Amino acid sequence: MQALTFKKSLTFKKNLPPAGLLNECRVRVLLAGLCSTDLEITKGYMGFSGVPGHEFVGVVEKSDDPRWIGKRVVGEINAACGECCLCIRGMKNHCSKRTVLGILGRDGSFAEFLSLPAQNLHPVPDEISDEEAVFVEPLAAAFRILEQLPIRFEDRVTLLGDGKLGLLIAQALKGKCRLVVIGRHPERRALVEKWGIDFLPASEAKPLRKLSDIVIDATGSSSGFALAQQLVRPQGTIVLKTTCAGKPKVDLARVVIDEVAVIGSRCGPFEPALEALAQRKVDIPPLISECLPLRKGKSAFKKAAERGVLKVLLKP
Amino acid sequence: MQALTFKKSLTFKKNLPPAGLLNECRVRVLLAGLCSTDLEITKGYMGFSGVPGHEFVGVVEKSDDPRWIGKRVVGEINAACGECCLCIRGMKNHCSKRTVLGILGRDGSFAEFLSLPAQNLHPVPDEISDEEAVFVEPLAAAFRILEQLPIRFEDRVTLLGDGKLGLLIAQALKGKCRLVVIGRHPERRALVEKWGIDFLPASEAKPLRKLSDIVIDATGSSSGFALAQQLVRPQGTIVLKTTCAGKPKVDLARVVIDEVAVIGSRCGPFEPALEALAQRKVDIPPLISECLPLRKGKSAFKKAAERGVLKVLLKP
Repeated sequence: MQALTFKKSLTFKKNLPPAGLLNECRVRVLLAGLCSTDLEITKGYMGFSGVPGHEFVGVVEKSDDPRWIGKRVVGEINAACGECCLCIRGMKNHCSKRTVLGILGRDGSFAEFLSLPAQNLHPVPDEISDEEAVFVEPLAAAFRILEQLPIRFEDRVTLLGDGKLGLLIAQALKGKCRLVVIGRHPERRALVEKWGIDFLPASEAKPLRKLSDIVIDATGSSSGFALAQQLVRPQGTIVLKTTCAGKPKVDLARVVIDEVAVIGSRCGPFEPALEALAQRKVDIPPLISECLPLRKGKSAFKKAAERGVLKVLLKP
Repeated sequence: MQALTFKKSLTFKKNLPPAGLLNECRVRVLLAGLCSTDLEITKGYMGFSGVPGHEFVGVVEKSDDPRWIGKRVVGEINAACGECCLCIRGMKNHCSKRTVLGILGRDGSFAEFLSLPAQNLHPVPDEISDEEAVFVEPLAAAFRILEQLPIRFEDRVTLLGDGKLGLLIAQALKGKCRLVVIGRHPERRALVEKWGIDFLPASEAKPLRKLSDIVIDATGSSSGFALAQQLVRPQGTIVLKTTCAGKPKVDLARVVIDEVAVIGSRCGPFEPALEALAQRKVDIPPLISECLPLRKGKSAFKKAAERGVLKVLLKP
């Protein structure tokens, strides 16, 4: 099969054996999405080598269970052992023996085929297009916040970041709290405001100092946390969505003095993401910057790293 | 009055006007305790100048309310405005206009007299000695953890730090969870084990990797957080008690990947601390290294900074 592989650098390969592990489903990838984590991987994040990519929509071509064959699916990216104490306690996404699609010990979606256990797959309802379905994984990560935190209608929630993930989180939280998006792309203001959400350029964030009950860092930048600390109120909550290679200097004493709660947030539930898309509650088309053929994968990575570019899709 | 003052360096002064602000109580200090925060202040923490010290037991000598006169008291250190939105929401300890005894805009307890609003004071029951009462403030900070977190009997709680605060937190949590203290002072093992609490030298902490539901950083060291991250389980909680000047490099991506909650924890409730002391549930005498006269305050600071020294008390 054709696939984009990474080992110190990206290479497009043509004659790889098709993915398909024992007792798993083989999925023909229809569309794959490029995430900031993929860009971090090419900088050495997670020390990954293999086929990157963890966002996809595809069709099951092979499965021990014939009911899956031909189904259009999206897939949860953490493949857990199901037996360790974390799995037993319901923390499958944190299984210490887990592999993670295109991130940790498992080839990913920038390929003609990928392999995942059947329990990771979710059928995609017909109302959801391929272009929308490829956003289910990051949208689920956005919904993860609502699983972790009791966000109340009266809470002032400040979302840092108007990038790919930020614009999904904004839509997941829309109408559920007093939300403002702080962004570095003034050209996205109109879009965010069209959704009925307040937008403030990062340069104008200062007056919000210490006023937010909850601040969500989806900047994808190591400087996001310091800004979040400035904006969160005492005893407020900072939700961390940003994963960067490298360790920023952090004012931990400020966390103590203000008794702030900092909550890390990673993968989320697919069900509400699929439901929100099926019910047309999330606006996906404006988030797609470009769709390139898989063989142009290297250009897609370059494109995705450019300022002002949102989601880049790859089509095998 | 006599007092120890700090402005770039510590000075003992003899002829200062006695403390006593309008509408507040004047307290004659019987004993004051030296906290690591006081040591940090002499390194520039909080940019404080004035009389340091925030741990004390004393006797009310002057008050608008005659019922206070002659009462032996301890005192909460945050003096709040009572009117701002944080005060109204019950977060007096975070009042943005607050002064803090010996830490922020208010002279402290390393003096013959100090001044505090009556609402900050708590009478000390006769069963509690002066030497015990001076520990109420840091013991309240220990009990703060139980206010913030639902600690369950089956939780594995790892307490990093066998210093002054650590040994109080250990006693506050004793019998409430599966507790282990990780310390850098092997000579304190016998004491901790006498209390019925497990002790592990820091050098032997590795096998506990990722096993703790809750890790409490009371190391007072900027390296405590990295060790806490190694020991906490995915979706576990790190409670931060350490306030250091300076900003350590922090692996924030690890917070996200493991979906850890980091909770800052500062001042706590005096009631359970007084109750625990009155009921003899907390063993204080072994925590006192030395009691020096106030005029020897500079030596007391030197002593308190020495390795192996626990609480140093000052007697005006």
